Amino acid sequence: MYSIAIHGGAGTIDKSLMTSEREKAYKLALQTSIQKGEEILKKGGSAIDAVAAAVCELENQPLFNAGKGSVFNAAGKNEMDASIMDGNRMLAGAVAGIWGIKNPVLLAKEVMLNSEHVLMMGKGAIEFAKQQKFELLPDDYFFVEARYIQLLQAKKAGVMQLDHADHKNKKGTVGAVAKDIHGNIAAATSTGGMTNKKFGRVGDTPIIGSGCYANNNTCAISCTGHGEFFMRQVVAYDISCLMEYKNLSLEDACNEVVKNKLVKTGGEGGLIGVNRKGDICFSFNSPGMYRAMIKENEELFIGIF
Amino acid sequence: MYSIAIHGGAGTIDKSLMTSEREKAYKLALQTSIQKGEEILKKGGSAIDAVAAAVCELENQPLFNAGKGSVFNAAGKNEMDASIMDGNRMLAGAVAGIWGIKNPVLLAKEVMLNSEHVLMMGKGAIEFAKQQKFELLPDDYFFVEARYIQLLQAKKAGVMQLDHADHKNKKGTVGAVAKDIHGNIAAATSTGGMTNKKFGRVGDTPIIGSGCYANNNTCAISCTGHGEFFMRQVVAYDISCLMEYKNLSLEDACNEVVKNKLVKTGGEGGLIGVNRKGDICFSFNSPGMYRAMIKENEELFIGIF
Repeated sequence: MYSIAIHGGAGTIDKSLMTSEREKAYKLALQTSIQKGEEILKKGGSAIDAVAAAVCELENQPLFNAGKGSVFNAAGKNEMDASIMDGNRMLAGAVAGIWGIKNPVLLAKEVMLNSEHVLMMGKGAIEFAKQQKFELLPDDYFFVEARYIQLLQAKKAGVMQLDHADHKNKKGTVGAVAKDIHGNIAAATSTGGMTNKKFGRVGDTPIIGSGCYANNNTCAISCTGHGEFFMRQVVAYDISCLMEYKNLSLEDACNEVVKNKLVKTGGEGGLIGVNRKGDICFSFNSPGMYRAMIKENEELFIGIF
Repeated sequence: MYSIAIHGGAGTIDKSLMTSEREKAYKLALQTSIQKGEEILKKGGSAIDAVAAAVCELENQPLFNAGKGSVFNAAGKNEMDASIMDGNRMLAGAVAGIWGIKNPVLLAKEVMLNSEHVLMMGKGAIEFAKQQKFELLPDDYFFVEARYIQLLQAKKAGVMQLDHADHKNKKGTVGAVAKDIHGNIAAATSTGGMTNKKFGRVGDTPIIGSGCYANNNTCAISCTGHGEFFMRQVVAYDISCLMEYKNLSLEDACNEVVKNKLVKTGGEGGLIGVNRKGDICFSFNSPGMYRAMIKENEELFIGIF
């Protein structure tokens, strides 16, 4: 049995601003993305390939804050982070503060598979990408007008904001978790970070243990939310530890972290998880999280609120 | 009761190459550094200030791979990472891929105390440093001839090496953990990374949960070793979870992670830890780790092998 879940960010999604047209567009984007992952699992492909494929599609959709559709930093640039982890071999790869790469999750996968390292950042990561024959796209590929308006608004208000704190376009990170028919699990996460961010700020997305984690013995987790809280609380690995050391179920562990520990500190956000049985868990303490899941021979689920 | 411990890196420290003169120099540097931290604790200062002071002094000593004494990357630059965490307020700060800053640990502390963020990288982190009135030092402050020879040797051999994998100068990261008389604990870690490193590689040092973690309820941990293994295994937070969720003692938790879990994957290195009672634990699976500890009214301990 295979299963896969994806998210397109958690936050204050205002129902009154969600026209049926917008809702339809989001649901279609989520459906297209999860199907890309499912296709791989259906053919007996690996969880790691499935999460990468689903996240690629989310990165390609301008509706979400990752890849094309990434928010702008204070310098008017799109600066992206991504990570991936294979719960079978316990390998991980991540990139932080990169630009010009269509699919940051594939560069994270390249770091995992074809370097000795786990995390590469900035210009150095781009040099690695070039060496590995990744195409470097011009800035205009990433330009999405709605994002630029968000930047202008944020600058005017003098705030550095989480994408999902914006009251018109509320969506943050994207991610996927999957279990393949061979019993292996994997997770991947990708983001454009915060609108108007300065100072080379890096959130939880490229941090193994915080924004992404996978271990066949416990769970695969992909997070979205106010990154600083997820980093201080090492959220993704905390769920794994609650399962491994306290024998909590996936659902209980996710809810303990998201609906108790994060709420206590004020850390808004959510996550998706899968265990080796293929159970899926969605957990979020924000009003909404763009999400979808599908299990072998079951119907597709898509949710926003 | 206060206590403090420091490390100056773990690795293959060859006894036969350790002249009594060299050994004396290392021991003096360790003693000077731990005393800087102890002075603060003795006066009733905080654990967070004590670990920062001790790590500053280790960064100022050219014998260790952090601050002055940092190894050179492939481009012939000193690129540094640091992190700090306050187990009382559960705040954390970190910087990755920075240069020109005399004491990276103080910049990490600045991120923790005077920004909304946990991690800043590269040029952006330097911009933040300038805004916060940190002095930017010229490259030659960081130039240490022995390090440059290491780079030339590494380039000749075509290897990117962990500092402590070098057979002449074996020392990696530096760090400190402390418990103050108010019952609070803290940890800090700082490094120059790997000799001849490329691609903006970032190791475990600036990763909260991997190279550094602190929580008054469990422990404060600072790691040193082959960073990629410490990142995949989320080492520092794993120890905290083993204490919190499995009720292991500090010593048992450290040894389970360092001498069992890391050994199984081939992850060489070690760490120092303190709990809220002020117990200190040194744990390493390498032949040596430069280290020192002192507890209130007890004698200073210094060890290398």
